[in-house]
Amino acid sequence: MNIQNFSLSEKLVSSSYVRQGLQARRGHEQLVRVLLQQGKCPEEGWSESTVELFLNELAVMDSNNFLGNCGVGEREGRVASGLVAKRHYRLIHGIGRSGDIAAVQPKAAGSSLLNKITNSVVLDVLKFTGVRSVSSCFVVPMATGMSLTLCFLTLRHRRPGARFILWPRIDQKSCFKSMLTAGFEPVVIENVLEGDELRTNLEEVERKIEELGAENFLCVHSTTSCFAPRVPDRLEELAVLCAKHDIPHIVNNAYGMQSSKCMHLIQQGARVGRIDAFVQSLDKNFMVPVGGAIIAGFDENFIKEISKMYPGRASASPSLDVLITLLTLGANGYKKLLAERKELYGHLAQELSALAERHGERLLHTPHNPISLAMSLNRLQTHGTAAVTQLGSMLFTRQVSGARVVPLGVEQTVSGHTFRGFMSHADAYPCPYLNAASAIGITRDDITLCIKRLDKCLKSLSKEACGEKSESGSPAEDPDMLHSKKCWVKYNPVLGKIGTNPTIRLF
Amino acid sequence: MNIQNFSLSEKLVSSSYVRQGLQARRGHEQLVRVLLQQGKCPEEGWSESTVELFLNELAVMDSNNFLGNCGVGEREGRVASGLVAKRHYRLIHGIGRSGDIAAVQPKAAGSSLLNKITNSVVLDVLKFTGVRSVSSCFVVPMATGMSLTLCFLTLRHRRPGARFILWPRIDQKSCFKSMLTAGFEPVVIENVLEGDELRTNLEEVERKIEELGAENFLCVHSTTSCFAPRVPDRLEELAVLCAKHDIPHIVNNAYGMQSSKCMHLIQQGARVGRIDAFVQSLDKNFMVPVGGAIIAGFDENFIKEISKMYPGRASASPSLDVLITLLTLGANGYKKLLAERKELYGHLAQELSALAERHGERLLHTPHNPISLAMSLNRLQTHGTAAVTQLGSMLFTRQVSGARVVPLGVEQTVSGHTFRGFMSHADAYPCPYLNAASAIGITRDDITLCIKRLDKCLKSLSKEACGEKSESGSPAEDPDMLHSKKCWVKYNPVLGKIGTNPTIRLF
Amino acid sequence: MNIQNFSLSEKLVSSSYVRQGLQARRGHEQLVRVLLQQGKCPEEGWSESTVELFLNELAVMDSNNFLGNCGVGEREGRVASGLVAKRHYRLIHGIGRSGDIAAVQPKAAGSSLLNKITNSVVLDVLKFTGVRSVSSCFVVPMATGMSLTLCFLTLRHRRPGARFILWPRIDQKSCFKSMLTAGFEPVVIENVLEGDELRTNLEEVERKIEELGAENFLCVHSTTSCFAPRVPDRLEELAVLCAKHDIPHIVNNAYGMQSSKCMHLIQQGARVGRIDAFVQSLDKNFMVPVGGAIIAGFDENFIKEISKMYPGRASASPSLDVLITLLTLGANGYKKLLAERKELYGHLAQELSALAERHGERLLHTPHNPISLAMSLNRLQTHGTAAVTQLGSMLFTRQVSGARVVPLGVEQTVSGHTFRGFMSHADAYPCPYLNAASAIGITRDDITLCIKRLDKCLKSLSKEACGEKSESGSPAEDPDMLHSKKCWVKYNPVLGKIGTNPTIRLF
Amino acid sequence: MNIQNFSLSEKLVSSSYVRQGLQARRGHEQLVRVLLQQGKCPEEGWSESTVELFLNELAVMDSNNFLGNCGVGEREGRVASGLVAKRHYRLIHGIGRSGDIAAVQPKAAGSSLLNKITNSVVLDVLKFTGVRSVSSCFVVPMATGMSLTLCFLTLRHRRPGARFILWPRIDQKSCFKSMLTAGFEPVVIENVLEGDELRTNLEEVERKIEELGAENFLCVHSTTSCFAPRVPDRLEELAVLCAKHDIPHIVNNAYGMQSSKCMHLIQQGARVGRIDAFVQSLDKNFMVPVGGAIIAGFDENFIKEISKMYPGRASASPSLDVLITLLTLGANGYKKLLAERKELYGHLAQELSALAERHGERLLHTPHNPISLAMSLNRLQTHGTAAVTQLGSMLFTRQVSGARVVPLGVEQTVSGHTFRGFMSHADAYPCPYLNAASAIGITRDDITLCIKRLDKCLKSLSKEACGEKSESGSPAEDPDMLHSKKCWVKYNPVLGKIGTNPTIRLF
Repeated sequence: MNIQNFSLSEKLVSSSYVRQGLQARRGHEQLVRVLLQQGKCPEEGWSESTVELFLNELAVMDSNNFLGNCGVGEREGRVASGLVAKRHYRLIHGIGRSGDIAAVQPKAAGSSLLNKITNSVVLDVLKFTGVRSVSSCFVVPMATGMSLTLCFLTLRHRRPGARFILWPRIDQKSCFKSMLTAGFEPVVIENVLEGDELRTNLEEVERKIEELGAENFLCVHSTTSCFAPRVPDRLEELAVLCAKHDIPHIVNNAYGMQSSKCMHLIQQGARVGRIDAFVQSLDKNFMVPVGGAIIAGFDENFIKEISKMYPGRASASPSLDVLITLLTLGANGYKKLLAERKELYGHLAQELSALAERHGERLLHTPHNPISLAMSLNRLQTHGTAAVTQLGSMLFTRQVSGARVVPLGVEQTVSGHTFRGFMSHADAYPCPYLNAASAIGITRDDITLCIKRLDKCLKSLSKEACGEKSESGSPAEDPDMLHSKKCWVKYNPVLGKIGTNPTIRLF
Repeated sequence: MNIQNFSLSEKLVSSSYVRQGLQARRGHEQLVRVLLQQGKCPEEGWSESTVELFLNELAVMDSNNFLGNCGVGEREGRVASGLVAKRHYRLIHGIGRSGDIAAVQPKAAGSSLLNKITNSVVLDVLKFTGVRSVSSCFVVPMATGMSLTLCFLTLRHRRPGARFILWPRIDQKSCFKSMLTAGFEPVVIENVLEGDELRTNLEEVERKIEELGAENFLCVHSTTSCFAPRVPDRLEELAVLCAKHDIPHIVNNAYGMQSSKCMHLIQQGARVGRIDAFVQSLDKNFMVPVGGAIIAGFDENFIKEISKMYPGRASASPSLDVLITLLTLGANGYKKLLAERKELYGHLAQELSALAERHGERLLHTPHNPISLAMSLNRLQTHGTAAVTQLGSMLFTRQVSGARVVPLGVEQTVSGHTFRGFMSHADAYPCPYLNAASAIGITRDDITLCIKRLDKCLKSLSKEACGEKSESGSPAEDPDMLHSKKCWVKYNPVLGKIGTNPTIRLF
Repeated sequence: MNIQNFSLSEKLVSSSYVRQGLQARRGHEQLVRVLLQQGKCPEEGWSESTVELFLNELAVMDSNNFLGNCGVGEREGRVASGLVAKRHYRLIHGIGRSGDIAAVQPKAAGSSLLNKITNSVVLDVLKFTGVRSVSSCFVVPMATGMSLTLCFLTLRHRRPGARFILWPRIDQKSCFKSMLTAGFEPVVIENVLEGDELRTNLEEVERKIEELGAENFLCVHSTTSCFAPRVPDRLEELAVLCAKHDIPHIVNNAYGMQSSKCMHLIQQGARVGRIDAFVQSLDKNFMVPVGGAIIAGFDENFIKEISKMYPGRASASPSLDVLITLLTLGANGYKKLLAERKELYGHLAQELSALAERHGERLLHTPHNPISLAMSLNRLQTHGTAAVTQLGSMLFTRQVSGARVVPLGVEQTVSGHTFRGFMSHADAYPCPYLNAASAIGITRDDITLCIKRLDKCLKSLSKEACGEKSESGSPAEDPDMLHSKKCWVKYNPVLGKIGTNPTIRLF
Repeated sequence: MNIQNFSLSEKLVSSSYVRQGLQARRGHEQLVRVLLQQGKCPEEGWSESTVELFLNELAVMDSNNFLGNCGVGEREGRVASGLVAKRHYRLIHGIGRSGDIAAVQPKAAGSSLLNKITNSVVLDVLKFTGVRSVSSCFVVPMATGMSLTLCFLTLRHRRPGARFILWPRIDQKSCFKSMLTAGFEPVVIENVLEGDELRTNLEEVERKIEELGAENFLCVHSTTSCFAPRVPDRLEELAVLCAKHDIPHIVNNAYGMQSSKCMHLIQQGARVGRIDAFVQSLDKNFMVPVGGAIIAGFDENFIKEISKMYPGRASASPSLDVLITLLTLGANGYKKLLAERKELYGHLAQELSALAERHGERLLHTPHNPISLAMSLNRLQTHGTAAVTQLGSMLFTRQVSGARVVPLGVEQTVSGHTFRGFMSHADAYPCPYLNAASAIGITRDDITLCIKRLDKCLKSLSKEACGEKSESGSPAEDPDMLHSKKCWVKYNPVLGKIGTNPTIRLF
């Protein structure tokens, strides 16, 4: 309410109370003022009521909510369903214009503000989580893979003759496909085994550049966050190589924002060498629904170029989600989540290590991976690969999600390229293993439950292998869960249904 | 509640009432059953309560909502903000998997169902709105432009040698950029003037194909819905040419679903010739927020190929919006909206024609354009182009949105390509004009208000031109609106700020 | 957002767009201003977005939402559940203070405003629906019965010696109990039969007053809205009698606001005689959830006295519901609903009359009842009272709600007082009958369905009575409905379970 | 979804995922089953998604949500506003029937279940918080005062000759008015001073009973929770007296549920003597919006009698709020809140005591009051009563809510009865004081802020009193707060505006 309406209220309700209400309103407006002025994530999180007040104010500024508007265009922000209008806080016009996803829309001042503020707040978070010298970023309503594709498509205009992308292997389909979709040929660099860790083969990288010619490479496409025992790429060295050979460098930092190590690698890489853009997932780093990413970099012009490459308007939904989340958490809330994640990483490592020992296995030594852990499954392997895969199936039915079993010798062809040892980032990793990760939002309870169920599954499998009738291993004990079937394998939640997929072969 | 819980309820509340409640529940389940069985848009719209019940049921099936779940992965559908969780009905996992945007997610049976059902319902709508022989489609959380890009990127793998896209000119930036982003060179075919209409120059199309070689064309990229006086492309003839020369054919059907004429063109084109895919906007056809599109076609394999080209998961938000909307409207509700739109098109044409006459202008004769209309601004032009542009600015400040003023002689360079007569789809259209469209969701009130305000603006401009002090033309009369400034031009809501953009030149 | 924040926004988004947003905001504020200034129901309904903006503004003014508040009291408006906070728009403090339900709360300026505005808007509605001279009213979060009790309790302080309440019989338990709860002895005046109508026996009223002494009567308690064939009491004559004998007069106008006739009776009664207060249900007149009433009158002091009689704070929920509803509908929307109701009353009468004729029954002639209708069930009665009661049961299982079957000869004892012919407002009404009402919100579809199902039931009963196997009468045809049991009676939705209640006897 | 729909889903999505979804659904249903079976507050709180699923299921059972319903009654649960429907989860029919607020409604099985379950869950909470032998209770949508009135009105029917209610003085208006509203004459028993505490004067109680005659007393009306230095009444002794003299006994346990001491008093009173009913506020004990209470007792028949005394239906809103809250918290969550409250009571006492000492005051010694504390304001009093009152005003403007300043010598007349020393529960308490309470939901931050602000206010007042220009005392330092005016008194948040109220006199 404006001053006039507050004055009118004083006729109905004692003016000293109304004035206190006005004062209270100013408290909310003050928070908005600081946000608009500084463009930063607020130190302390806002209450939900301030967040909603703010969003409602933004919505009021969009033409579809003008009380006196009449629309005779083909895109007027009309909404047929009240449920839909409400869940978007009546912000209907999306973000961007046909020329540029970061552009301001005349019809939608509120949505445009939302877009600008979100990008500004997210930039602030990138800075305080470790990439201090980042200069520009924007939220794009596409997941990491498609966002990488957009980066590659943008680079094509700068390097029209390039055909290859140099890519240290990481067994995650969308990374690989992001290059194919953009129309380039990935040059896969196999990792080298150092202790238990799989690390970037720098010599091979340099060799390939020389072999194929630097000018034929669109870019180097490196990765930070990944499943152990692979560890983040040697970003500094790659960045130096890129600078030396004048090759652009795009970093897939999918869920790396949650780890100061990954962020530090990017900061350092950009300082000593060349990083053109780094891409991170919104959902994995900010606990919002799947579907958005942040494209960031150190050269404002290049980031602007990418944003102009997106043809047309785009969904504001991921921007809205991340803005609500960051305003609610505040910088302190977000940092607290990061600190908890780090602490629970240590806890998970400890628990997993103890469990491994009890079952004659061991926690792989992967100190360079700050998020993901791996436990060997050598003993299970002695009963055959089917037993290993069965573990995955058992965990799935017991509602342990995200625990990924990696058997030996899986072969998979993705868009014509065959990967041996698929899922393990290496043609022939020495042992099968199980992954578990301490990602943002994980709780101590998640770990406790996971260890308990994993323990039961391993015990049960071990008994079955010995020909005993397993009694404790069935999920029947856990009354909330599906009954597992008493037979070997069938379903692997990571690979999909075994046997039905002709490109997968177990040996 | 299940049967057991209903039985327990009978101990608390008379069993005859409980049984009636059970019966009522079956009513909702019955609707869901029919939906799952037939995969079609229900004839009659569902109540919001059925829609929400159904969405809640879907959410329960996703692992992030399992009561006993423990997550140790990097993507567990965790949500930090309750506001965010709620606005997505706790459906957090998005759609698709790394390999395919249409794939099923093990962690998210509910979201996967949502995705399948939405695509199935949307396919049904495509059929009953006119493209009866469409065989496959999917919703993609990208707007029309980026979706076209995805189609082009997919075709590249089929036609690796192709460089050109043949494109009958339409002055809409994102259409043009969709080709550049994909890395192709548009071959622009200027339209021919037939009466007032701008139509596809088929001779020039064929000439270009022969000149550059059919094998060098990735595809023909045609358009249905567009601003008058341009009319939908001659799809049938283009489709025949494509078949003859074995060139793929992608149709931009941005807001064409709302017009039976546009849909009929696609149906006929596919029948007599070749159409590989046609793309339509979600927001423009279904009154949902900006950010989604439908990619559809007649060959299931090709559509599948496109969906597999999208690397990684994607936002479920546009799918959710369109599903809610279609379940709420029902097929009958949607058809009713289409019928109203058509009726109001006639009304708008009549009103605009009468207004034009009163001001010494005329409604351009564009019978092939079923949605957009244009009124000449010849008389205004006698006072200079600035007067024409001023009209746009006045309408903007008077909250007439979507009424687009097209002055003569605008030149604009988009990514290196210069368009003369930009916005008018022709180098030199005979007159400046104003567009208004009857799009889905328009109301009789919109038209009444628009005509009234337009009338005032024209009167006011005419007086100003005569040197009179305009009294009635200021929006001050309309107390809800911004005061217009008493000076020539400055701002054009379509072009952006005049003068600050070096690529725009008025002559 | 305040002016300062709008200014800051201009640095992020073009100032012409921001200014338009500011202008749009003023549109909403303007609506609020008019509401605060005039205290009337707005002519045109507000959009949901204006309503929610307004409620959010009110909430901001309550201390539980102050950002800097610290609470060390026993009632601080804390909320444990976010779901609860949200569904009350964070308005937690309720209405009133310990001294007075209409008083302003220092801790809750927003809730206090809500309360004042609601009462003011409701007063306006009372005026334009017909009681033009009403001077004061308030919403109380108790249903009609308890609100009547509160009126009686207030009168006790004015007439400490009174023992009786004079009450023209109406067979609705809560009316009767409202007097007992207040501690008074109802003096029941049996109605007289005029044609088919049951009307107030004025002679008996006057006789009783003289018999027991006017000073011993707390008040006359009359009724407007009621089930046919009873008709609204002769309010004018009663009001004149009350004035003459100096007896207070309380009118139960439960769902009478929706009928101009009932409102006119009150207006006239007050003009020519005495009416101290009249009470109406919120849910029945405004289509909000059950639980609120309006207590209104012509003497501001007396109404104030009643509001001061309510000890302590009270729920704001009914006030919130009715305010949201009236702001959304606007005066015009509400009047439109009333006009539709009236029109559908005629339609229902016609349909019911035609149906009655087809089944050898007739529509009772009750022109003084503007809402409820009654159709005789004489022919059904020839098969016994069980057949009549069975009809009620069949309608219930076929989801015809509100159609009330009134058999002959029901006797019921309520708190020690035995009513013969209970439900029929008379010891021995000439025939059994079925009631149906055209109440606010009814639709043409409701009537069509009701007539259709009623027709089937009557046919089926007639066949059963003839010993035929009924085929068409089972609700099995209507697949959404419960199967009725093929046996006589058991359940009467109005009376409850027959036989289990020892006070009910069928003869 | 039912089994059939899950089966159909398996055609769209892999059956192993669907089966896991089905399993997950059963998890929610299992929680509902336990609730229905045991009727207890669940040990662990439910997720919001389970709560909403459950409420939606209940709503489906109400006739207003039947898909095939047709309504021809006067009360059909129709809702005009979607906002209203949604905020009540579409549960529109309220609770109770005309005969009984606890009765089941044929039209609303879901709402009826809601009502039954809420009462059952609340009974469980009463038991585990200390009144183990409670046998029956119900939630009533009226605040404590009106609920007490309902108890008195019910007793009237049992003791028609009684005129008096014996009431140990507690200075809270609604308690006092609850008796007047019911039409009885309170016999006020002044408290006795024991140390700093004000306690029940048992001798005077017995003397009054004998003086006026036990048979003339409707009941004894005692109080547990109250502001220090008054402490809970000697319930055991009062209960014994009631038993001895055969006088009913109603306990006002307004916010006593949150204290094991208060609950213990009731349990003991009932064990050794007579307690007929005890009434507690919903908002104060469960952190829900104002407007509901629980009426509970040890004799099921008497409680039933009270519930039957409520004439007509009633709002389900308070029941809904408390059910949502208790299902969300679970018994453990609620107990945790109680434990925190108790712990913070100790903390508040310590902090207040330290502060008092610094300012030459002392914390009054009131060990029998488990919730409220009082700090003397003797030194402030040396500057006059205006200084004391000014402190209240300063705290109000500094957003310290609930800190209640009690000056000496306030006289107030409530409905004809004059209280000397009003607010202090005694004609002449030895010193003025300030109250602060540790009530459920209080946080450590509340206490810290309160102590800090109180400290500043006291310092500022002390300087002002010394004629110094106060610098630190203005709330200007706290930028979020209203500027206090630099002059003595004006406003007391407890008393209202000083001077304008003729019944208040300062001396």
